[in-house]
Amino acid sequence: MPIIQKEIHIEPKKRGFNLITGEVLSQIPEIKDITTGLLNIFIKHTSASLTINENADPDVRKDLETHFNITVSENASFYKHRDEGPDDMPAHIKASVLGSSLTIPITNGKLNMGIWQGIYLCEHRNYGGSRSLVITIFN
Amino acid sequence: MPIIQKEIHIEPKKRGFNLITGEVLSQIPEIKDITTGLLNIFIKHTSASLTINENADPDVRKDLETHFNITVSENASFYKHRDEGPDDMPAHIKASVLGSSLTIPITNGKLNMGIWQGIYLCEHRNYGGSRSLVITIFN
Amino acid sequence: MPIIQKEIHIEPKKRGFNLITGEVLSQIPEIKDITTGLLNIFIKHTSASLTINENADPDVRKDLETHFNITVSENASFYKHRDEGPDDMPAHIKASVLGSSLTIPITNGKLNMGIWQGIYLCEHRNYGGSRSLVITIFN
Repeated sequence: MPIIQKEIHIEPKKRGFNLITGEVLSQIPEIKDITTGLLNIFIKHTSASLTINENADPDVRKDLETHFNITVSENASFYKHRDEGPDDMPAHIKASVLGSSLTIPITNGKLNMGIWQGIYLCEHRNYGGSRSLVITIFN
Repeated sequence: MPIIQKEIHIEPKKRGFNLITGEVLSQIPEIKDITTGLLNIFIKHTSASLTINENADPDVRKDLETHFNITVSENASFYKHRDEGPDDMPAHIKASVLGSSLTIPITNGKLNMGIWQGIYLCEHRNYGGSRSLVITIFN
Repeated sequence: MPIIQKEIHIEPKKRGFNLITGEVLSQIPEIKDITTGLLNIFIKHTSASLTINENADPDVRKDLETHFNITVSENASFYKHRDEGPDDMPAHIKASVLGSSLTIPITNGKLNMGIWQGIYLCEHRNYGGSRSLVITIFN
């Protein structure tokens, strides 16, 4: 079967950078049977995003959140789009800077990432709720 | 036919963040016949980029342009690459921050994006002209 | 053979934005035989990244490095993650902003990029050493 595709849901996360490698992998056991392939993860939202970064020290995730809060201000006077509160437009900006999809190689039944790499759900809203991801696997 | 690939052209756009979902889809009617697949869109330029963001309120696109104009200054005194004018080097920086390709799942004949998501052509030059995209579809 | 996958290694690079198109292509001669396909390049590190930008004027690469050094400070007082020195946390931030993978179309035996586009290895550490990339080609 060359293509596997399904939608999965990620439990609501706190605002910030959240490590979700385990939560994603537990929902795609099909990877274990794939010798060579590619995983695409696509987030169906414009105020949350996906990135890959260090899976060890949680301070990396805290520092990323602080950096983005400083460089994408909630109080910029120029925002026209602010109906949903001060975290609304900054969330859209962060989502475009970080990106809406990841593509990761699969080798011998596992994601072929570096040993320090993990998948992050970047939740840019104060109360973002559950997030939907479309998983597509080619092999 | 597992791979469809073609080059399409986007009409010249104003500098800023432009919603092009319809203009792209009208040039790839093949999607309607695909049950499960993946669309890759690659932009063949270094001073324009692609991103996914909100397809509803146009103020999101205006605020993104303002944010990037503030955070990637046209008047930074350190720029060495400035032969083509003050919008040249900032365009290259924005292109790398936002990225040169998008990968989007296809499900049941449609792009499987969230209901608020659209495809943006981010035109970073004052007069960028027509932009070329390579479309590759796997199914 | 629809999928080609292998890990390649990039010689240690100076901190900054390094053009590696030739170094990558020399390690994937298989591309010459592919009529239509897609190349994914994935970097197995969290303190270096990949982007596409201008392959001509080297000043573009210098200006990108200067821009990122200014906007992602090494001396931000808020960093908690600093065990490996002042270039550690900024490297993680830059890696997420620029991204960990590229997807590039292949057409008639060549990468179908624009004539001014090249592949950059963005080395964010002072002494990053050799970097490992996973190459996956679908055709």
